[in-house]
Amino acid sequence: MKSYRIAIVGALGAVGQEMLKILDQRKFPFETIKLLDIPSNAGTMVPFGNDYLIVEAAKKGAFSNVDIALFSAGGDASQELAPIAINEGAIVIDNSSAWRMDPTVPLVVPEVNPEDVDWHKGLIANPNCSTIQMLVALKPIHDIFQIQRVVVSTYQAVSGTGQKAIDELRQQAECYVTGKDIIPQVYPYQIGFNALPHIDVFQENGYTKEEMKMVNETKKILDNNVQVSATTVRIPVFRGHSESANIETKKAFDMDEIYTILRNAPGIQVIDDPGNHVYPLPILAEGKDDVFVGRIRKDFTIENGLNLWIVSDNLRKGAALNAVQIAETLIQRSLI
Amino acid sequence: MKSYRIAIVGALGAVGQEMLKILDQRKFPFETIKLLDIPSNAGTMVPFGNDYLIVEAAKKGAFSNVDIALFSAGGDASQELAPIAINEGAIVIDNSSAWRMDPTVPLVVPEVNPEDVDWHKGLIANPNCSTIQMLVALKPIHDIFQIQRVVVSTYQAVSGTGQKAIDELRQQAECYVTGKDIIPQVYPYQIGFNALPHIDVFQENGYTKEEMKMVNETKKILDNNVQVSATTVRIPVFRGHSESANIETKKAFDMDEIYTILRNAPGIQVIDDPGNHVYPLPILAEGKDDVFVGRIRKDFTIENGLNLWIVSDNLRKGAALNAVQIAETLIQRSLI
Repeated sequence: MKSYRIAIVGALGAVGQEMLKILDQRKFPFETIKLLDIPSNAGTMVPFGNDYLIVEAAKKGAFSNVDIALFSAGGDASQELAPIAINEGAIVIDNSSAWRMDPTVPLVVPEVNPEDVDWHKGLIANPNCSTIQMLVALKPIHDIFQIQRVVVSTYQAVSGTGQKAIDELRQQAECYVTGKDIIPQVYPYQIGFNALPHIDVFQENGYTKEEMKMVNETKKILDNNVQVSATTVRIPVFRGHSESANIETKKAFDMDEIYTILRNAPGIQVIDDPGNHVYPLPILAEGKDDVFVGRIRKDFTIENGLNLWIVSDNLRKGAALNAVQIAETLIQRSLI
Repeated sequence: MKSYRIAIVGALGAVGQEMLKILDQRKFPFETIKLLDIPSNAGTMVPFGNDYLIVEAAKKGAFSNVDIALFSAGGDASQELAPIAINEGAIVIDNSSAWRMDPTVPLVVPEVNPEDVDWHKGLIANPNCSTIQMLVALKPIHDIFQIQRVVVSTYQAVSGTGQKAIDELRQQAECYVTGKDIIPQVYPYQIGFNALPHIDVFQENGYTKEEMKMVNETKKILDNNVQVSATTVRIPVFRGHSESANIETKKAFDMDEIYTILRNAPGIQVIDDPGNHVYPLPILAEGKDDVFVGRIRKDFTIENGLNLWIVSDNLRKGAALNAVQIAETLIQRSLI
């Protein structure tokens, strides 16, 4: 079996660390793994298996012996380093939003549009975390009943912002317990015991970038005819994004059909026995690969309406896992 | 000026305590305030002004010298004691769900349907917390543009469950900080750092009672033709419910008209300057009377669509304040 030389760029970040874990857990056929991060982090030793990997500086020349570079270092770093990596011979799978809407770059959720990897030109973009889990749940329904419109409200974990935000929520819990003042740094307001209707920056139309990502990435990945209206909200959860999605389809459906379709769809686990308090929860999604779907209800206010509660680990399926699955898709489709 | 003999039933609960505070803050024209609670709490001294009020047992005979009894003692206590209170001559304003959908009982939000107090037969019901704040925001829009459908997802604080749940969230934060195991008691799962898509009990149709309250109470209070599809979720916030509401109107509107209408509506404060990070937040709503509306956006996916983020203090406008305002409405309309 062929094996591959992998690099993780942004290796010490929350997603980078998760990428490393997932490559190991899924027994990805790697020959070598190179950890790259900002120069000041070079030399950091990261435990891996029974050994350590030593972090190197992400810079020109670092990609000459790399087949696949998994980038999770933010938009600026991607814009600077991805062209270098491609030029040195790597295929880049980028977790930032830098190239997602570039028409020459495939934007891929392997359960939804694996065939789009075929036309890559050296770079494949990993979608936004809240978009990925929503589309894994929508895809099997859309295939049969043609989704026309989605109204989605999100309940997003702080780990989507990165390690600093995880630390901030922890610190704010400590301040609360010890009676100290809470001084927000990562977010404009305290996130502990609060809900912030603000993720990423605001656009002229009043929506945030995060909300518009859900709108635009859905069109690019799933179907240009699917309309999304999104409200994205940060809540004091460490890990696991939740979404309340209201869906309108063109074709009529029975609820039995919806259950069957979701139960048989790839990447989905149906968790829906509310009478026994069985429904998806962010704390139960942590560290898991699936997108959990529950609270599956007919919406009685329109002809073909459906409500879903969709939960997934934002660092795994929402970021690191999806990126690794894109790499696996490249292999499966003999593109590397 | 006439003054009234008031009783608070469930006086030591989170809402009962808030009722007492609000009667004082609003300079409600009371002659006496009687605090009633379960017999085992009788004798408890509650500071009020420069003095103390002594809690008495809520039982037969306790209402003979009461004009208005504000009940917040749960459905069972209301069902047992409200008929007794009415029989002894009090007008009951009940915060439980026991009589809300009884067609002989008015269900009132003073900003929305104050005229419904006119046909009371001794008992007026206070709506569900998440319904009240939503309807205060919807009413002025409905009056002019005729709302047809609302898709709402809630972000509800633990204080909606009562003092025990407030204590539980606090304890879970402590357990987290001190590294102790979290053992949920009030909710079926840990609420700290989690999101529970489960408020009140599940119905046969897959919706919770809380969700169906928003559906049915909206019809009774605002307009039988308004369709609501609701998903209600508990999040780790102490106080202040937030709601992401997607609205479809029959008549076309300009966004300028929506802003003007909301800015001039009673009980609403528009907080909407996202570029400067100005939007409603639960921690900023605590202790306030208004319903805060922000993130006001045209929904581009349908002809007449609108998204709102609606936040209010669930113990005040969602419960205690609305009940006191119903009492004020009785006085204003010379019904007492």
